[in-house]
Amino acid sequence: MTHEAGIPLGIRFKLLSDTPQDSAAQVVGDVVVGDYRDLETLRAFARGCDVITFDHEHVPTEHLRALEADGIPVRPGPDALVHAQDKGVMRAKLDAIGVPCPRHRIVADPEDVAAFAAEGEGFPVVLKTVRGGYDGKGVWVVDSAEEAAEPFRAGVAVLAEEKVDFVRELAANVVRSPHGQAVAYPVVESQQVGGVCDTVIAPAPDLDEELALRAEEMALNIAKELGVVGHLAVELFQTRDGRILVNELAMRPHNSGHWSMDGAITSQFANHVRAVLDLPLGDPRPRAKWTVMVNVLGGDYPDMYSAYLHCMARDPQLKIHMYGKDVKPGRKVGHVNTYGDDLDDVLERARHAAGYLRGTITE
Amino acid sequence: MTHEAGIPLGIRFKLLSDTPQDSAAQVVGDVVVGDYRDLETLRAFARGCDVITFDHEHVPTEHLRALEADGIPVRPGPDALVHAQDKGVMRAKLDAIGVPCPRHRIVADPEDVAAFAAEGEGFPVVLKTVRGGYDGKGVWVVDSAEEAAEPFRAGVAVLAEEKVDFVRELAANVVRSPHGQAVAYPVVESQQVGGVCDTVIAPAPDLDEELALRAEEMALNIAKELGVVGHLAVELFQTRDGRILVNELAMRPHNSGHWSMDGAITSQFANHVRAVLDLPLGDPRPRAKWTVMVNVLGGDYPDMYSAYLHCMARDPQLKIHMYGKDVKPGRKVGHVNTYGDDLDDVLERARHAAGYLRGTITE
Repeated sequence: MTHEAGIPLGIRFKLLSDTPQDSAAQVVGDVVVGDYRDLETLRAFARGCDVITFDHEHVPTEHLRALEADGIPVRPGPDALVHAQDKGVMRAKLDAIGVPCPRHRIVADPEDVAAFAAEGEGFPVVLKTVRGGYDGKGVWVVDSAEEAAEPFRAGVAVLAEEKVDFVRELAANVVRSPHGQAVAYPVVESQQVGGVCDTVIAPAPDLDEELALRAEEMALNIAKELGVVGHLAVELFQTRDGRILVNELAMRPHNSGHWSMDGAITSQFANHVRAVLDLPLGDPRPRAKWTVMVNVLGGDYPDMYSAYLHCMARDPQLKIHMYGKDVKPGRKVGHVNTYGDDLDDVLERARHAAGYLRGTITE
Repeated sequence: MTHEAGIPLGIRFKLLSDTPQDSAAQVVGDVVVGDYRDLETLRAFARGCDVITFDHEHVPTEHLRALEADGIPVRPGPDALVHAQDKGVMRAKLDAIGVPCPRHRIVADPEDVAAFAAEGEGFPVVLKTVRGGYDGKGVWVVDSAEEAAEPFRAGVAVLAEEKVDFVRELAANVVRSPHGQAVAYPVVESQQVGGVCDTVIAPAPDLDEELALRAEEMALNIAKELGVVGHLAVELFQTRDGRILVNELAMRPHNSGHWSMDGAITSQFANHVRAVLDLPLGDPRPRAKWTVMVNVLGGDYPDMYSAYLHCMARDPQLKIHMYGKDVKPGRKVGHVNTYGDDLDDVLERARHAAGYLRGTITE
């Protein structure tokens, strides 16, 4: 999707891919297959690149520092990216700059989890490995010290957080360039199913204007304080008592911004590319009153072709984005976007298409 | 641009390119460099393709027939495409199906041109080589038999046409699938400078509704009668006396449809891909009240980078599409799209950006 956004800008990509089957490797011209955890692979790959960016946050921080020492611009840089790689570092930094977060601390063992619970409202408590989790992986909600053994088995530091009593989840997406130019997308509502993003509504319906502005300013402030270059997604909890607390950070085009591909004047991918190359940023405002994104998850049938035909025929305004992935149950294999003036209609169309593609709707 | 539109649809391209530097070859993964005039190159390339399509009309008709005989679907097929390759065949067919064209006939020599002129309103007369011309090449406007020698030197058949007294040029863009499903984009105004498309306004301003409908129906009818699969652009003259006459046909995504990349619900490129693969077509309606496309031609300075920065900074809503071509004076190296409610503003923004990129505006 980043390559797609780079084509009209005249930007050519060189891709380091785990396998030749990865989504990006199917569409980019210049592909090197290799392991992003291997410094020599990274160094050989980076030679001749004007700038390096990512579509995930798992490249080891120390390797990124080595590339920078070699004179290759890395954007976002390792000093910023570590806040999206390590939840412990992220929480400490957000505390330091005064950004509201759920109550949290690093815990040593199940007894310490019980102590953390006792310091606040008790169980349940959320436990997260500080590195490596995504889409609900690496996250546990535990009701007792006995249930808290699992997270400690990986040998990674574990962060305990209060289970926030939230009304809904929001996301504030911003993009910042090395110049310090920054743009904010409208705050969206993000609906999760089983820890995985399911539906995004842009802008978030019935969101108090003051709260929306506060969320945008918070995200812009985080981008500035952390020195982010490129796209920053700030996942937020909207609490019952009217607060917004930071849940997670992502430093790359993010699922909560996929609506912008068809719903904003400039998509998150185009603005990420522009930021990474220090080009002036594009207008992030929405083009439609409502845009809805629903993820397409793999269902029980590996062949989506007839469902794909059905969805296009049923709704000629539907925007389908398929990732070229083999279908596996629960795997994100694409997303759909719809837009229009009537939120109910826009939501129904996106949910129907995503459900039909997955196979959970068959009419 | 076709590859860009294919990415979200999950469509993978294999590209036959003249050189590794061609625009498409810079962004497509699977590129074969070879000569499209060589049948064996085409045959080797076509092996394993589900369907073949083009971004120009110069592949020899007989080679396309050979590929079809090999069992490879060619869309549009050679029986349709010949009408975009050979202006003589095109005029004969349009006459046969009752589509209004400028007065015309194949002429044998300069004396015959004089006879053609005498049969109508006299000189000037437009002469066109029946094959090979584009962007004003292969077209002459002559004021006398003496001036008419040049077109005959190439040894290709020459078509004489009356010089139409037109108010403006229009284009009707339609897309048709093998199923026979067809969609019509709004009729646009196309402004030429020196025989080259400069500005396209969608929809054509102040166009009589009945005339617009007639143009759309004409284009849909041509697509059906000629058996077009994919995109068909019908370039039209709007005459002073309220008629519309067909100037040229193109069977591929066309410059007069580039506005649709940012201005329509479904772009011409996406619909061409959908048609060629016999997928249901997308909605061709405009997303904005006005969309303007202006071509970016190469100017005197080969390095457009600072102009590119300036344009993005000046207008964050500007949509730039660069083709990755070396800048040569007068060469189409990209285009810009703008859209909005105020046509004067939309036109000014697009023209300013294109002029600045070319170097003809320097403020």
